Amino acid sequence: VSDTFLDGFRKVAMSDKRWAVGVDFGGTNLKVGLVNAAGRVRAAAVLPVGRPCGPAEFLDAVEAAAGALMRRARLPAGSLRGVGVGAPGPVDARRGIVRTLVNVAGWREVPLARRLERRLGCRARVENDANLVALGEWRYGAGRGSRQLVCLTLGTGVGGGLILEGRLQRGASGAAGEIGHVVVDPGGPRCGCGRRGCLEAHVGTAAILRLARRALRNGRGPLRRLAVQACGELSPALVSKAAAAGDAGARRVWEEIGRWLGLGLAGVANLLNPDRIVIGGGVAGGWRFFEPAMRRALAAHALPAAARSARVVRGELGNRAGIVGAAVLLWRENQKA
Amino acid sequence: VSDTFLDGFRKVAMSDKRWAVGVDFGGTNLKVGLVNAAGRVRAAAVLPVGRPCGPAEFLDAVEAAAGALMRRARLPAGSLRGVGVGAPGPVDARRGIVRTLVNVAGWREVPLARRLERRLGCRARVENDANLVALGEWRYGAGRGSRQLVCLTLGTGVGGGLILEGRLQRGASGAAGEIGHVVVDPGGPRCGCGRRGCLEAHVGTAAILRLARRALRNGRGPLRRLAVQACGELSPALVSKAAAAGDAGARRVWEEIGRWLGLGLAGVANLLNPDRIVIGGGVAGGWRFFEPAMRRALAAHALPAAARSARVVRGELGNRAGIVGAAVLLWRENQKA
Repeated sequence: VSDTFLDGFRKVAMSDKRWAVGVDFGGTNLKVGLVNAAGRVRAAAVLPVGRPCGPAEFLDAVEAAAGALMRRARLPAGSLRGVGVGAPGPVDARRGIVRTLVNVAGWREVPLARRLERRLGCRARVENDANLVALGEWRYGAGRGSRQLVCLTLGTGVGGGLILEGRLQRGASGAAGEIGHVVVDPGGPRCGCGRRGCLEAHVGTAAILRLARRALRNGRGPLRRLAVQACGELSPALVSKAAAAGDAGARRVWEEIGRWLGLGLAGVANLLNPDRIVIGGGVAGGWRFFEPAMRRALAAHALPAAARSARVVRGELGNRAGIVGAAVLLWRENQKA
Repeated sequence: VSDTFLDGFRKVAMSDKRWAVGVDFGGTNLKVGLVNAAGRVRAAAVLPVGRPCGPAEFLDAVEAAAGALMRRARLPAGSLRGVGVGAPGPVDARRGIVRTLVNVAGWREVPLARRLERRLGCRARVENDANLVALGEWRYGAGRGSRQLVCLTLGTGVGGGLILEGRLQRGASGAAGEIGHVVVDPGGPRCGCGRRGCLEAHVGTAAILRLARRALRNGRGPLRRLAVQACGELSPALVSKAAAAGDAGARRVWEEIGRWLGLGLAGVANLLNPDRIVIGGGVAGGWRFFEPAMRRALAAHALPAAARSARVVRGELGNRAGIVGAAVLLWRENQKA
């Protein structure tokens, strides 16, 4: 039997494998979903995991969840094309190794793809989680059609992914796209990374909460009422709620976030001249409150050519961007990344 | 005669065309050189041109210089493979159009490649000048072997070129690589581009001279003596000379330049995770005085993974980087950019 015949046979066989398991590993939870080549999510689940969740527990959880989702969706075992995992830290995507995880102990140079392949009997790929959001938005979301995409994920950390000339940029050691650690203000607040003035130190969740606490001290509007109802537990979502209720202090919080965000994006735009900037992640929920200030700061700090080219939009895939992006890894023929 | 045969014939014919004319258009002068596929410069000249030098004068000068260099090098007309031009402004490289030039009037959407091809009867390519320095250093200089190259050119302006995954990054509108306009200090000095706190405003020639004037007011060392000898005409080269003669003020000037440079590079390194950063351009002459402070600031502000990967080196091609890089455009089969 010729190799060409076998290749043809394998292709036919692969084309029946129409579902991928996308895994978004958040450190304290695990999002798992079945995704097809069109980016459609058929079934999804969020699993709580131990703190810290080590590789062994991770493998158990993914195997159990994949099986349960396949059964729930009444899919035969043969229709699983593979598993794609997004990990919150630098990975060696080519060799399928998780190098280390930010905030999760027990992960150091773990050959996760190989272990998943052995365990599940299908292909497995790993990638940095922010890169997956970028891939997901690029293929199926707000980044469709972009040739020069910058994708920013706002949350506790501020991550990013770059898809330039149709290629996901991983950098020399898998650490490209750390937009959160572009320095926007060398004398600024201390960042979680230990340095000063990173974008993340200005627009990450900790910064939002710091500004919100300051607003609480001075204000007596809806923010205070909501904070009391939440037993003092502030969150970006609560600040959005207060802003929606007309709280002036909460609105100023988002305006300041928008200003720093626009400043950071301006530097990125001047450097990379993207045609699209997609803003995703949980904190993007404050979009309508930080958007005007963000656009003003971007226009003020970006070169005219860079500002003209860069269309800034909100991510479309929400908190499923990671699992949808993970599936992109399994349909490599559809993308050059 | 089959197409394949003709293609083969053309290839043989092209392989005889072993010299390219590289042109580096500086606005007030024109560097022209004959360069071969190995990046060797056989003959070169620097021509003064009118201020402003419009497209017509430019074409005359390039035609005359190309002919003169070919004769000087005793090369037959058939050995000219083409002309590559570096222009100080954004270009549409695919269509060979100079969109506009910074500081040179009379250039707006000029189809320079087509006009050069008609005039000289050979292929012509145009590219942004900082991108050419990057291409030159990448193929023949300090960037050889890099997969993720950031190239910075220090001078009156601070330009840059990015070659990522083996591809020159032009961005959405040919404006990628403007490292000089990455914002490093939002409250900083006004930049030539009209905005505040750009890297260029901190490390461009104007910033060096501003710092040097301040050093002059306070110091009585070699800087003052050299400045008097130069009739008060300061230059980065003069500041280097004073630093070499032990002038403490001049050394502090370079240290401050190094600090800002390292800070700017840290942001770029965090975003792109390059394996190599090449520093070229005229001001790189102060290298030994700004290098230590630059490396300290880079280490202080870059993420450990980014700092570990990025080897920072001085450009090797000096002021010929532009013409050598222009020749790279004519040997496209040797590079994917």
